[in-house]
Amino acid sequence: MTSRPEERPPATPDRSSTTERPRRAQLVGTGLIGGSIGLALRARGWFVTGDDLDPGRAADARAMGVVDRVGHDPGAELAFVATPLGAAVGAVVELLARGGPDLVVTDVCGVKAPVVAGAGHPRFVGGHPMAGSEQAGLAGADPGLFEGATWVLTPTGDTDLQAFSRLRDVVASLGADVMTLSPADHDRLVAMVSHVPHLVAAALMNAASRGAKEDAALLRLAAGGFRDMTRVAAGQPGIWPDICADNAGAITAALDVLLGDLSDMRRRVAAADRTALLGVLQEASAARRALPARASRPDELSELRMPVPDREGVLAEITAVAGGLGINIYDIEIAHSAEGPRGVLMLLVERGEADRLRQAVTRRGYRCSVQELR
Amino acid sequence: MTSRPEERPPATPDRSSTTERPRRAQLVGTGLIGGSIGLALRARGWFVTGDDLDPGRAADARAMGVVDRVGHDPGAELAFVATPLGAAVGAVVELLARGGPDLVVTDVCGVKAPVVAGAGHPRFVGGHPMAGSEQAGLAGADPGLFEGATWVLTPTGDTDLQAFSRLRDVVASLGADVMTLSPADHDRLVAMVSHVPHLVAAALMNAASRGAKEDAALLRLAAGGFRDMTRVAAGQPGIWPDICADNAGAITAALDVLLGDLSDMRRRVAAADRTALLGVLQEASAARRALPARASRPDELSELRMPVPDREGVLAEITAVAGGLGINIYDIEIAHSAEGPRGVLMLLVERGEADRLRQAVTRRGYRCSVQELR
Repeated sequence: MTSRPEERPPATPDRSSTTERPRRAQLVGTGLIGGSIGLALRARGWFVTGDDLDPGRAADARAMGVVDRVGHDPGAELAFVATPLGAAVGAVVELLARGGPDLVVTDVCGVKAPVVAGAGHPRFVGGHPMAGSEQAGLAGADPGLFEGATWVLTPTGDTDLQAFSRLRDVVASLGADVMTLSPADHDRLVAMVSHVPHLVAAALMNAASRGAKEDAALLRLAAGGFRDMTRVAAGQPGIWPDICADNAGAITAALDVLLGDLSDMRRRVAAADRTALLGVLQEASAARRALPARASRPDELSELRMPVPDREGVLAEITAVAGGLGINIYDIEIAHSAEGPRGVLMLLVERGEADRLRQAVTRRGYRCSVQELR
Repeated sequence: MTSRPEERPPATPDRSSTTERPRRAQLVGTGLIGGSIGLALRARGWFVTGDDLDPGRAADARAMGVVDRVGHDPGAELAFVATPLGAAVGAVVELLARGGPDLVVTDVCGVKAPVVAGAGHPRFVGGHPMAGSEQAGLAGADPGLFEGATWVLTPTGDTDLQAFSRLRDVVASLGADVMTLSPADHDRLVAMVSHVPHLVAAALMNAASRGAKEDAALLRLAAGGFRDMTRVAAGQPGIWPDICADNAGAITAALDVLLGDLSDMRRRVAAADRTALLGVLQEASAARRALPARASRPDELSELRMPVPDREGVLAEITAVAGGLGINIYDIEIAHSAEGPRGVLMLLVERGEADRLRQAVTRRGYRCSVQELR
C-alpha cells in the first residue's frame, strides 16, 4: 500500500534535538490487543505504523484511526508483535532484521518461553498484557484496555538492560502495572490461573451441554454461578490450540494438580465426609475472599537503589531474587553512568517488602540502599 | 416469646367472606432466602410469622421488618421452611403436625429427593428458588431476590393438586419463573449446573492458593477469568457438606463426567492435538454463547387444557411427560369442577412446543386442547 502524503512518517528523531518529534512505533497485528496498543500509543502522541497478516484488517485499522499508516516503519524505536502465537516468532525475527540498531521488539503472546527462545535476541523482551475484552478483534480495541491491568515482561539473562528499561517505561505509560517474571515462571503461573481455568470452563460447558440434549431443563437451571464459571469459554477458540501446544508441560502439570484435587473431593462426597468437605470449602472460601481485587499499585512504596555492572544477566538475577521471594517489582529504572560500564538499578517495591529484598540482594554481593517514597 | 398487641395475627380468614383479610404465612428460617421470602410476602400484603433455629436471628428479623411477628402461627395457610438442609425435614414434619388441615408446606433446600421423601406428605411440595446473593444471611435479604429467578417446584405422584396450585400461585406472585421437575431430576440437574461447579471453583481456588505459597506472583496474575471461575467459592461453606452428602450420587456421577472430559483434554494437550482441542473449544464457545441469559418467560405462550381426574399422580404424570420432552411449564392452574372428582388442568408452555406436548398427553389418554394466548 502506498502511503498518502499525510501518512508519511516524521523524520527519524534526532535524540539530541530539543524539538518535539513524535516517537515512532511499529505494530504487527491489529486485533483486539494490537489495536488497543495502537490507540493507546496514538493517544499519547506516538506515530504508529501498523501491519497485519490480513491486509484488509490493517486497512480497517487505518480507517478506524488505530494506526497512522499501514506498512513497515524502518525508523520505529519500538515494535509490538500482536499476532497469534504461531506467527509471533517469525514476525519478531523479521522486525529485528529490518529495524535499526536501537529497535526494541516485544510481543503479547500468552505463552512466553517459546517466543523468547525463538526470538533469541537481547533487544527482544517478551510481554503479556493480562487484559481482554468480551468483544474480540479490532472492533473491541480500546485505548484504556491496559489501565490498571497487569502487563508481564519476561527479561532473561541475555536481555539488554536499556531495551528492557525503554519498553518498561512505555508499557507503564499506557497505565499498566508492570510485572517481571522469567519466561518459564510466567508460563507455569498462567497455566494455573488462566490456561487450565479456560479448559475447565470449556469442559463444564460441554458436559452441561451434553446433559441438556437429554433434558432441556438443565440449562434453564444454569444460574449465576454456572454462568460465571463458563463465561471465558465463550471467547475466541482459535488462539487456544497454539497456547495448549506451546505450554503443554505447564498445563498438563496444573491439570494434574486439579484432577487430583477433584478426585479427592469425589471420594469425600461419595463417603459423605462432611468434616473433610467443610475443611476444603472453608479453605477455598477464605482464599477467594483474600484474592486481591486487582494487582493494583500499593500506596506505600520504597525504592531500592543498587550500583550494578552494566552487563548481561544482572536484571534477570535481581528480578529472579524478587520473584523467588514473592515480591512484585512495581517499577524498574536503570540510570547509566556517563563514565564506564556501570549503572544504578532502581527498583520500586511495596514498603513492607523492601527490607527483605535488600537483604537478599546484599547476600548476593550488591550494595543496596532503601528509601521510602512519599 | 409473647406477642405484643400490635403483633397479634389477624383472625383466620373466612374464605367465603368478601372482606380483605391478610393472608397468613409461616416462615421457619430467617436467613438470606427466608428473609427475602418474608420481605417479598409482606410487600404483597401477607402477615408473616417467623421463627428461626437461632432465636436471636428471629428477633433480628422482626426488628428489620422481615416478619410481622416471631413465633408460630397455627392459622397460616402456607409455610416456608428455609433452614439448612439438615434441619428441614424435622421442621416440615413439625409444621404439618401443628398446622391446620389446609396448610401447605414447602422448603427451599438445594437438594430435593431426601426432603420430599422425608416429609412424605401430600401437602408438602419441595421447592428450590435458584437465587442467591453475594451478601449472606439476613443482612442480604431482599424482597426483589426472586424477580425473574427460576424457582423449581417438585411435586410427586402423591402431591395434592390444590396444594401445589396454591403454592405455585404464591411463588409466581413473588416474580419467580416456576419450573416443575421431579425431585430426582432436580437433584441430577443441579448437580451438574450448581453443585459440581461449586466444587470445581473451590478446587481451582485451592490449587492456585497452594501454588501462591510457593510463588506469590501467582495470584497477582489472576485476572478476570480466574476471578469469575472462583467467585462462587467465596460463598458460605456451611451449607455444602449437607448438600454434598445428600446429593452424593448425582454429584459423583456429574464429577465423573467432568473428570473424564478433563482427562481427555489433558491427553490432547500432552499430544499437542490442535485439531481435537479446537473442536472441543469451539463446541464450548458455541454452547456458551447460546446459553440463555435467563430462564425468562417467552412472549408467545400457548395454553393446554385437559380434563383430569382429581386423583394423585396426575400432576406428576403430566409434568414428567413435559420434562421428558424438554418442555418447560411456565404456569399450571387447576380448575376443580364443583360436581365430582374431576378438574381441568391448564398448562402454559411456549407456543412452538404446545403441539408436541398435546400429542404426548393425548397418547396417554388425555383429551387436550391448545389455545394460543394473545
